[in-house]
Amino acid sequence: MNKTSKLHMTTDEFRKQGYKVIDWLVEYYENIEDYPVLSQVKPGEIRSNLPKDPPIKGRSYNDILSDMDIMMPGMTHWQSPNFHAFFPCASSGPAILADMIATGTGIVGMLWETSPSCTEVETHVLDWLVDMMGMPEKFKSSTNGGGVIQDTASSSTLISLIGAREYSSNGEFNSIATKSKLTSYVSSHSHSSIEKAVKVAGLGKNSLRVIEADEAFAMKPEKLKEQIEIDILDGYIPTFVCASVGTTNTTAMDPILEIGKICKKYDIWLHVDAAMAGAAALCPEFRYLQDGLEYASSYTFNPHKWMLTNFDCSVLFIDDRNKITSAMSVVPEYLKNKGSETGEVIDYMDWSIPLGRKFRGLKLWQVINYYGIEGLQKYIREDVDNTQKLKAWIERDDNFEIVAPVPLNLICFKHKKGSEFNRRLHEAINQTGKLYITRTKINDEYILRFSIGQTTGTINHIRKSWKLIQKIAEEID
Amino acid sequence: MNKTSKLHMTTDEFRKQGYKVIDWLVEYYENIEDYPVLSQVKPGEIRSNLPKDPPIKGRSYNDILSDMDIMMPGMTHWQSPNFHAFFPCASSGPAILADMIATGTGIVGMLWETSPSCTEVETHVLDWLVDMMGMPEKFKSSTNGGGVIQDTASSSTLISLIGAREYSSNGEFNSIATKSKLTSYVSSHSHSSIEKAVKVAGLGKNSLRVIEADEAFAMKPEKLKEQIEIDILDGYIPTFVCASVGTTNTTAMDPILEIGKICKKYDIWLHVDAAMAGAAALCPEFRYLQDGLEYASSYTFNPHKWMLTNFDCSVLFIDDRNKITSAMSVVPEYLKNKGSETGEVIDYMDWSIPLGRKFRGLKLWQVINYYGIEGLQKYIREDVDNTQKLKAWIERDDNFEIVAPVPLNLICFKHKKGSEFNRRLHEAINQTGKLYITRTKINDEYILRFSIGQTTGTINHIRKSWKLIQKIAEEID
Repeated sequence: MNKTSKLHMTTDEFRKQGYKVIDWLVEYYENIEDYPVLSQVKPGEIRSNLPKDPPIKGRSYNDILSDMDIMMPGMTHWQSPNFHAFFPCASSGPAILADMIATGTGIVGMLWETSPSCTEVETHVLDWLVDMMGMPEKFKSSTNGGGVIQDTASSSTLISLIGAREYSSNGEFNSIATKSKLTSYVSSHSHSSIEKAVKVAGLGKNSLRVIEADEAFAMKPEKLKEQIEIDILDGYIPTFVCASVGTTNTTAMDPILEIGKICKKYDIWLHVDAAMAGAAALCPEFRYLQDGLEYASSYTFNPHKWMLTNFDCSVLFIDDRNKITSAMSVVPEYLKNKGSETGEVIDYMDWSIPLGRKFRGLKLWQVINYYGIEGLQKYIREDVDNTQKLKAWIERDDNFEIVAPVPLNLICFKHKKGSEFNRRLHEAINQTGKLYITRTKINDEYILRFSIGQTTGTINHIRKSWKLIQKIAEEID
Repeated sequence: MNKTSKLHMTTDEFRKQGYKVIDWLVEYYENIEDYPVLSQVKPGEIRSNLPKDPPIKGRSYNDILSDMDIMMPGMTHWQSPNFHAFFPCASSGPAILADMIATGTGIVGMLWETSPSCTEVETHVLDWLVDMMGMPEKFKSSTNGGGVIQDTASSSTLISLIGAREYSSNGEFNSIATKSKLTSYVSSHSHSSIEKAVKVAGLGKNSLRVIEADEAFAMKPEKLKEQIEIDILDGYIPTFVCASVGTTNTTAMDPILEIGKICKKYDIWLHVDAAMAGAAALCPEFRYLQDGLEYASSYTFNPHKWMLTNFDCSVLFIDDRNKITSAMSVVPEYLKNKGSETGEVIDYMDWSIPLGRKFRGLKLWQVINYYGIEGLQKYIREDVDNTQKLKAWIERDDNFEIVAPVPLNLICFKHKKGSEFNRRLHEAINQTGKLYITRTKINDEYILRFSIGQTTGTINHIRKSWKLIQKIAEEID
């Protein structure tokens, strides 16, 4: 953009339209509760309202902005205070503004030299997080380890698994000696991203061992040990254990300390996936949930979930950066430069699959500075308190039952009338558009999941939603 | 965000600060030529100016915005009209505004249901691109194929390779039958992302066959055929050929048609990587460069490079979506929903490594609508014209020599005084801060790369840069 252009948007027009987009967003947030939380359109409905062919001539930005009216019915409102599906994907003013700057300046930080601030701010805030969350020092950039921002926990897990694969096979995964031999371990309640990572990394789905969970849906360490020993006897090479701090299903907490000791004994890469729940460690009183992190080779959590930093922002910490860079670094001539050659700088392109990288550290910078440690703690604690209040209300209703422990901000519950009733209840709830919850299956039963953590969610919103759930349950009975 | 909050940014404050950030961006673009294009800071310099510890109490947004003054010296200005490094990573007003909406609304489109507009607008604009660029119909969503947005071409290539790996091994890559048997093929001038993908996908670096290039740095099809036949005789399973439309080194054009016929004959997955140069196909006169695309199983190009759509936005087209979804789809209970179960909708989470996805289709929507087909064509044509003008100037200077064909918007050239002189010249050029160019190596010589395509770049900027290069060459002589 510049002052004058016949083809491109000028800076004057950008200012005018930029203000309009800001106004549009303000209006969106001020009226967000008027929209159905879960979009109610039919498949294909949005497309059928879009022009069949692209325009030959350009259109005015005013017109283009008004296209949002066509798209709005097809939006599911993740920032609504009544969004209780999946997990919070909480955003905030400073995060959005930081992203505007990152996107607006359009810098790319693949190498240190291509924007030193992009690399150094990222390193700095990730070192901050190690302290803010009481993580082991080995995850700091001043050691052999360090942190890196990825898009999602799926990518963080994949990169860890690739590191583990190369570690266990001495960089010769595809050789006769190790092929079909490397085994990975998850609990039966782990996230699907681990199975996906195993497929993507080429380990073969049969290499994944699913370890039994206890009645709180956490991995049984003795079963893990048992399976590892069987596998070793059978000639396999146990390679990768993924333990969850807060499973997606129920926020179950795998016992990291015990699992960690087993991994250490058998020299297995322990990856800890705390995608949503990790943010709780901002509060010292919840850090016990990840006791044993010192045994982990890698650890991931997503500030874009429960830390007010909008999507995408997953952070991956690693105890030895060489374990991943040696698996992924390829530096051709056209990427060589002075800084990298002297080894004085970090080139994050070697820590992730994409080569190009946005200035995502800026979001974390602005969020941490805007809220301060105390503000972030307040946000987490309020969500946990609100969750306990909802839990008490559900417990007081004889028609409902809570089906899993509630350590943080997710409640899994069911109506006592059985799976088919819960399925109908679930659909009826989401069809109201007043709130959006998702489901899971536990012991073969249809279970409702109520997730808490929306930036603007208050106990009043939650109370209203709960009353509505009770009312619908009566109506469809 | 909402009207009142003690903890979070209110909508009133967001409006105020949002306007300020817009003003900040306008000022940034209006003064962008005052900054050194390539950041001149030393390693660690930016970090040393950041506070050691995170703040306990939150800070005002005014203060936080002024932190940009600390970071600015560490920014390399990718949107400067004098940025001629790597490749254009061209942004535009409508792209930035669209991203503000995508980021601001904070929706996540992993499943169709989690925002139908996110999925359907993406599908719609990618179908548009098939027509706009004269691609084969098989890449449209109305067939078995279709397009999907990825972050970068590295990811697009990785996903194609994984699809190919599973296709060639019948979903049993990690079995004895295919162990160490799958081979991939690239030209000696291909992008490093293919080697990286081969490592990540676990095929082993020895499985990559580097095919000789001709004097124009394009893959020699007869050498490809030769190598494939040798490999088959030796018991290997040729799996994946990556052909480039515009290599990163020199924009060399691999002969897709001839390569495609070979791939067809031996049933090998042909992936065409047109990351930067693909956008040229917006103009009918350049489509001959990708003749033979009907033989490709997958095709990728990055609108975030030469199509005015800011980072990140790489598009991947595939002729049979099942080839990639079968390699990557894992659907656990908590992601099940009505739309997906009936098969009526696309869930893009199965087309990419991350589960979560931003509303990136909106950027393409706004860019295509703002410029129209004619506007985009005008932009491409002007860059190609400007490149030819620079080429003529370089040719007229007896001290310099052009070392590779110039089909589009990249010039590889050298001073005739040899590699050491070019190395010094290169460093001196970038140290001026007046322009930024990168290097490569061809026939073991140090070569300068001058890339054209900046949104605000004009022939005057290029002329000035060229004169400066001539002047520096004289000075350091």
